[in-house]
Amino acid sequence: MDRVMPAELHNRIVQAAYRKRGFTDEESGQAARFCELAARHGIKTHNALKALHLDDHFGSGNPTAKGCVPGAAIEKQPGKFAAAERWNAHKKLGQAVAFEAIDTCIRLADKYGVGMVSVDEAFHYLWGGGYVMEAAKKGYIAYTNCTAALAEVVPFGGKFPTLGTNPHSWGFPTVEAVGFPIVIDWATSTVAMGRVQQFKREGKPLPPGAAVDKDGRETTDPNQVSALLPFGAHKGYGLSLINELVAGLIGGSLPTIRSRPEIAQAGEKTTPNFFFQVIHPEALNCGAFAKGRNQAQNVKAVVADILGHGNSPPEGRTMLPGELEHRAAMNSQKAGGLIFTEAEIAEFSAITGQVGVPFAADSLKPWQA
Amino acid sequence: MDRVMPAELHNRIVQAAYRKRGFTDEESGQAARFCELAARHGIKTHNALKALHLDDHFGSGNPTAKGCVPGAAIEKQPGKFAAAERWNAHKKLGQAVAFEAIDTCIRLADKYGVGMVSVDEAFHYLWGGGYVMEAAKKGYIAYTNCTAALAEVVPFGGKFPTLGTNPHSWGFPTVEAVGFPIVIDWATSTVAMGRVQQFKREGKPLPPGAAVDKDGRETTDPNQVSALLPFGAHKGYGLSLINELVAGLIGGSLPTIRSRPEIAQAGEKTTPNFFFQVIHPEALNCGAFAKGRNQAQNVKAVVADILGHGNSPPEGRTMLPGELEHRAAMNSQKAGGLIFTEAEIAEFSAITGQVGVPFAADSLKPWQA
Repeated sequence: MDRVMPAELHNRIVQAAYRKRGFTDEESGQAARFCELAARHGIKTHNALKALHLDDHFGSGNPTAKGCVPGAAIEKQPGKFAAAERWNAHKKLGQAVAFEAIDTCIRLADKYGVGMVSVDEAFHYLWGGGYVMEAAKKGYIAYTNCTAALAEVVPFGGKFPTLGTNPHSWGFPTVEAVGFPIVIDWATSTVAMGRVQQFKREGKPLPPGAAVDKDGRETTDPNQVSALLPFGAHKGYGLSLINELVAGLIGGSLPTIRSRPEIAQAGEKTTPNFFFQVIHPEALNCGAFAKGRNQAQNVKAVVADILGHGNSPPEGRTMLPGELEHRAAMNSQKAGGLIFTEAEIAEFSAITGQVGVPFAADSLKPWQA
Repeated sequence: MDRVMPAELHNRIVQAAYRKRGFTDEESGQAARFCELAARHGIKTHNALKALHLDDHFGSGNPTAKGCVPGAAIEKQPGKFAAAERWNAHKKLGQAVAFEAIDTCIRLADKYGVGMVSVDEAFHYLWGGGYVMEAAKKGYIAYTNCTAALAEVVPFGGKFPTLGTNPHSWGFPTVEAVGFPIVIDWATSTVAMGRVQQFKREGKPLPPGAAVDKDGRETTDPNQVSALLPFGAHKGYGLSLINELVAGLIGGSLPTIRSRPEIAQAGEKTTPNFFFQVIHPEALNCGAFAKGRNQAQNVKAVVADILGHGNSPPEGRTMLPGELEHRAAMNSQKAGGLIFTEAEIAEFSAITGQVGVPFAADSLKPWQA
């Protein structure tokens, strides 16, 4: 049975958990803000529970070298390019860095039409879609990519995993046109490693083109999986490579040692990188829309044409990227809080015990969608 | 048997063909420059023959309304954003507009770290990879997308084609690191419509996930194909949608009437759009590379890690995007000209007859790779 957790309670728990790990009040607040955003939009894979789990394994809890350092300060490097900032995050909490980066991009885009922030020495920002969605809700076109924690993906034609699941996230200012921001956001592997575990538990085969065995041969048997494959053959490979090249230009080192300080040589770097970009929609607007439309009306007409001709329900099944997240947010609003499964509530309950926040799972309102 | 055409002769033919259609000397020169670039890099699908064919059907030869207007001038609109230009191309030759746009982006990137040019009322620029490759050879990160001429692709979950094959092209400044620019460049459909025709001629089935029949059901029979599918299911759909949204923000209208003036209502627009962006690599450089590497050395180390571990030949088959184009260019250099098939030479021969350029196919040097 799903239950509804008030956002205020959720945020109090998350903040307490981060504070206990030594993060500052501001960092803990940004962590809670982000986890609320993810939960509100139904992003099960990158909610508070995943965030804390990542921090345990790769972040402030990593015994070899902390991948995330509580209280670290962003070092903003001076540079000659007005529309671009270059930051060394010094392993500061990823969510806090990402929120500040996207806000900085917006400020630059307001001035120059486009703004970029490149981040070295980063720590996992979880759900890239969240940051671009926030910018898109404010009326901007936003993009981010990052290098994923581990090299789990085999390049097209290869055998050994040397690429991250390297996601891309784009957000578009379509609230006026379609009621919510269109958010295109996915990893460049066919499936995530977490999905492979799920297929294994359920005893089901993987989809084709998803994984290879230890000899680099494609397999659909989740028990034989040694590494993942990029989606769409050479095309997904190219998209994954983009993140590695951008990271390499920023300051990231070898993909196969990323987030693995225990195998890195002295003098090596094992941190991921972030790239953010925001564009002001007026910086693209050539002002000559057909039939007297304005920019938003034109985008609305274009989207209606794409979804029309029997493509969307009831005749077809086409949806807009970001539509499921929007529906989840509407549900959260209706429920008056954040909706979690029983298993998730149990995990939260365990956390509250450790961080001293009073919590009674049974008192949370049941939720039926 | 392949033959080698001197670039000077090729360019003389292409220029004469464009001049005969009424294009200016400058436009004809840019058309020839582009077609040489495509031929030199082995891009058979977007060489001079394809360029002229497109101009016949959708461009200056279109009987309903010229999609490309010889001698048109770009109207550069004033705007408040320093790093972004907005152009109305007024259907000027696509190659001429694209070369000028990428050069403008470079100039803006030199100043602001990033530069953008958005183009309304455009005509097909052929091979986006060519423009980003030129910028990457000069040391920049470059990106372009455009809306393809016709809506031939069904959105994920739909039945009716409402999206173009909408390509994306990225170029990276990797000449120092790997000997050539990495160029990631492809359409967002699994295959192009031209490939479907080829499968039909050869009596071979299509790959899965490539096309649908007239009822919107997936088919691998090239004779049943009514429309194309995006690559990688919802992911390729999202990538195709990006081009439509960007075009819609710039000034493009409904995808299903694009390049089809014969079915458009009065007051509608049927032109595609271009978006260009260039980033200066120093605008990303955070200056803290591992083991004392500089930026190029770092990118080289990252790429070596990706291609290593048995992934590339002789053990594996992984290549870098842009490697085939680089090899083709090396072959062209070795041949001392542009390499064409017998069928292509015959087509050139027919063109020379029409435009009055002396041409003797037999006098062209045979070429064996």
